[in-house]
Amino acid sequence: MSTTGPETQTTEAPVDSEEGYGLSTDVVYAVEDALADKDSDEVRALVSNLHEADLADLIESLPRDARQSLIEVLGVGIEADVLPHLGAAVREEVIDQLGPQRLARLLSRLDSDDGVEVFADLDEEFQHRILSALPRAYRQILEESLSYPEDSAGRLMQREVVVVPSAWTLGETIDYMRAAEDLPDDFYDLYIVDPRHHPIGFIPLSRALRTRRPVRLTEIMETDMKVVPLAMDQEEVAYLFRQYGLVSAPVVDEGGRLVGVITVDDVVDIVSEEAEEDIMKLAGVQETDIYSAMLDTAKSRFPWLVVNLVTAIFASVVIGMFEVTISQIVALAVLMPIVASMGGNAGTQTLTVTVRAIAVKDLTDANAARFVGKELLVGAVNGLLFAALAGLVAWLWFGSPDIGMIIAAAMIVNMIVAGLAGTLVPLGLERMGVDPAVASSVFVTTVTDVVGFFAFLGMAAVFLV
Amino acid sequence: MSTTGPETQTTEAPVDSEEGYGLSTDVVYAVEDALADKDSDEVRALVSNLHEADLADLIESLPRDARQSLIEVLGVGIEADVLPHLGAAVREEVIDQLGPQRLARLLSRLDSDDGVEVFADLDEEFQHRILSALPRAYRQILEESLSYPEDSAGRLMQREVVVVPSAWTLGETIDYMRAAEDLPDDFYDLYIVDPRHHPIGFIPLSRALRTRRPVRLTEIMETDMKVVPLAMDQEEVAYLFRQYGLVSAPVVDEGGRLVGVITVDDVVDIVSEEAEEDIMKLAGVQETDIYSAMLDTAKSRFPWLVVNLVTAIFASVVIGMFEVTISQIVALAVLMPIVASMGGNAGTQTLTVTVRAIAVKDLTDANAARFVGKELLVGAVNGLLFAALAGLVAWLWFGSPDIGMIIAAAMIVNMIVAGLAGTLVPLGLERMGVDPAVASSVFVTTVTDVVGFFAFLGMAAVFLV
Repeated sequence: MSTTGPETQTTEAPVDSEEGYGLSTDVVYAVEDALADKDSDEVRALVSNLHEADLADLIESLPRDARQSLIEVLGVGIEADVLPHLGAAVREEVIDQLGPQRLARLLSRLDSDDGVEVFADLDEEFQHRILSALPRAYRQILEESLSYPEDSAGRLMQREVVVVPSAWTLGETIDYMRAAEDLPDDFYDLYIVDPRHHPIGFIPLSRALRTRRPVRLTEIMETDMKVVPLAMDQEEVAYLFRQYGLVSAPVVDEGGRLVGVITVDDVVDIVSEEAEEDIMKLAGVQETDIYSAMLDTAKSRFPWLVVNLVTAIFASVVIGMFEVTISQIVALAVLMPIVASMGGNAGTQTLTVTVRAIAVKDLTDANAARFVGKELLVGAVNGLLFAALAGLVAWLWFGSPDIGMIIAAAMIVNMIVAGLAGTLVPLGLERMGVDPAVASSVFVTTVTDVVGFFAFLGMAAVFLV
Repeated sequence: MSTTGPETQTTEAPVDSEEGYGLSTDVVYAVEDALADKDSDEVRALVSNLHEADLADLIESLPRDARQSLIEVLGVGIEADVLPHLGAAVREEVIDQLGPQRLARLLSRLDSDDGVEVFADLDEEFQHRILSALPRAYRQILEESLSYPEDSAGRLMQREVVVVPSAWTLGETIDYMRAAEDLPDDFYDLYIVDPRHHPIGFIPLSRALRTRRPVRLTEIMETDMKVVPLAMDQEEVAYLFRQYGLVSAPVVDEGGRLVGVITVDDVVDIVSEEAEEDIMKLAGVQETDIYSAMLDTAKSRFPWLVVNLVTAIFASVVIGMFEVTISQIVALAVLMPIVASMGGNAGTQTLTVTVRAIAVKDLTDANAARFVGKELLVGAVNGLLFAALAGLVAWLWFGSPDIGMIIAAAMIVNMIVAGLAGTLVPLGLERMGVDPAVASSVFVTTVTDVVGFFAFLGMAAVFLV
């Protein structure tokens, strides 16, 4: 028709804008509108090009009614791969709506590790109803995976592994791989096993591709290999991958036999889950799922608030010990939250650093004492500075140098205590086998509240009244 | 010598215990002892088998003097790969000790992305002294990488990519890879480019290995490819990898030409860094490095504490408005921290969930209104429950049903306000382009403190006095 210079030549647009990735809000609104119009063809058209992860986001972000209409429209046409991408609350809703028969059909299309993830979250009765509808081989895989503890390598691993005997050459290996039907879709390393099926080394695919056919596998394999036992906790697995920059790692049973493989894409999810859990625990939140029902959310927040009420009352009891003092100098009631609040903040800062340093294994027995000493000094230095500031403010406000001196002294005490409590509480909990992220925060702020009120009001009672 | 049954056969012990991974505290102490004894051979022997990541951990966890002796003993014999594993504070110390000449020698042994990471953190004068000691080609790579914004894809990417023209067969590709000298050590995908060097598809290595030589690359390549522009922020890159389960992604310049590749191992680090940053920011901590010098740490915590002092004084001013009321009923001073504290905790819970939901893109314009409404209801439900509890406690404690009623009413108000502030503040900051993790916490607790004190004391002033 016309000449086409290289400038006008179209290729599959390689430079997407950043906004081009992920689910766009426009699509959400368009689907909502189409659902409201009961235009099923339009809905299917809008959804057809979405990646399964984006479709999962769409399902999650719709209001409940629209979500149910969407699942109805998609029916079993829904991609099985969407299920693992859904958060627990919405996934449960979707699964209830699908029912056991349709779910079983979807489940059997998933890889073993994804299938286990979805299946494990179901309640027991539902599990039984689905099991009977599943193919026998898949059922066995599910049952075995579920026999491993939650959050263990056994649950995480994929059973489909590329395993080759140590006697083979690379050529034999390639011929086998071309012929084999049941290999996993994606893999990154070949594992070489001895006759007892123990892994003795691995070959990265990039190396295999560059090697000539007659070369023996044992000549080019890496033997410095990190092996994961079935029972290893996922947090430990994630540490291993991060520390050593692994892409995949073999999983072995108690007898040392290779039974599966964990790949780095699973680890990316764990790393973010574990950090997420620490954030939430530090704030006293149990769920990470913004789609939980309102009452479930309120219930999950309740226990932490109860603990906080008890500690707040405890702090009030301390204040109550000085009722007489306060009635004589009301300025004390006005100023006392400042000391407690500064201690609480300084304590939370120290605590957060400590909890994370423990989590990423930066803080160990070898350097704990030095770390505590440093944080104590940090508390003392900032304590001095804020003692001067708060003292000055109190003096100017109430025209009393005495009150200024006392708030300053209380501030120094409380900031040092904050540094000590912020390090010693999580280290102590860790040593007692308690997760420091869960419980530290409440202990530390209780300590800084009580010490803050007691030091300030106590000194006032002794020196001012 | 003797018969060896399969039971006694030794293989490279495949099942390490969990404790076998990572740096053991025993090694740290042994190295400290050997350094104290000035036994350099022993030190080198102890260190020789450590993975570079574990050696970095060892260097970090030694006291400063021992650290310097260790670097002296290792000298240029130190593995270059240790440097990227060191945290910023200790790395600076080590680099100062090595000096520019020795550092330049180490740097030139690193992959371009690792080299850039180490180099970018140096101060400018040091950078200049090192540049002149580096090979010209390496220098150009460093200078170009540094021209991209910090935390951008351009900084993260590795320049060594396996690129093949679309006209080739798999056989031609394999022959090229066997002959090429400058391929990266590890890669996971082959990128196919058109004549203008635009990426048009990729082939996972596992697929390449299973394909016969005469097959054309264009027949087996995937065209649904996520392309990363040079300027994309690393947080966005991490989102892309997580959302779509990528192992590697091509990086393109403004003209759409392939210039590098980002691999999943870098993304694992980013995911944990970004979550880490959010944890630290929520607690008002700027550094994540427990090895910073004491005064640096104190200084980095200072600004947040100043902000907290200002807001604490602001809350005190609110209390000061009710001095007369408090002087008449001292019980108010005793009880008032309970209302503020419960509001602060509930607000922090909501805030944390909101900040993370924004960070992982679960919370968007499409569902924000519903989310705020839900959190408001959560606040109201828990507000009612804790109003009853706190009211009962106050009544029993001070024998006054009136004080009980007033603390209950104030509690309901403050818990609802906590739900609103915990969602609206981070959503508002996000819309204004401010990172909600940094500033939300202080706003929300100021709101709950002020509302808590004002509601409780205000109602007391109106109804009790």
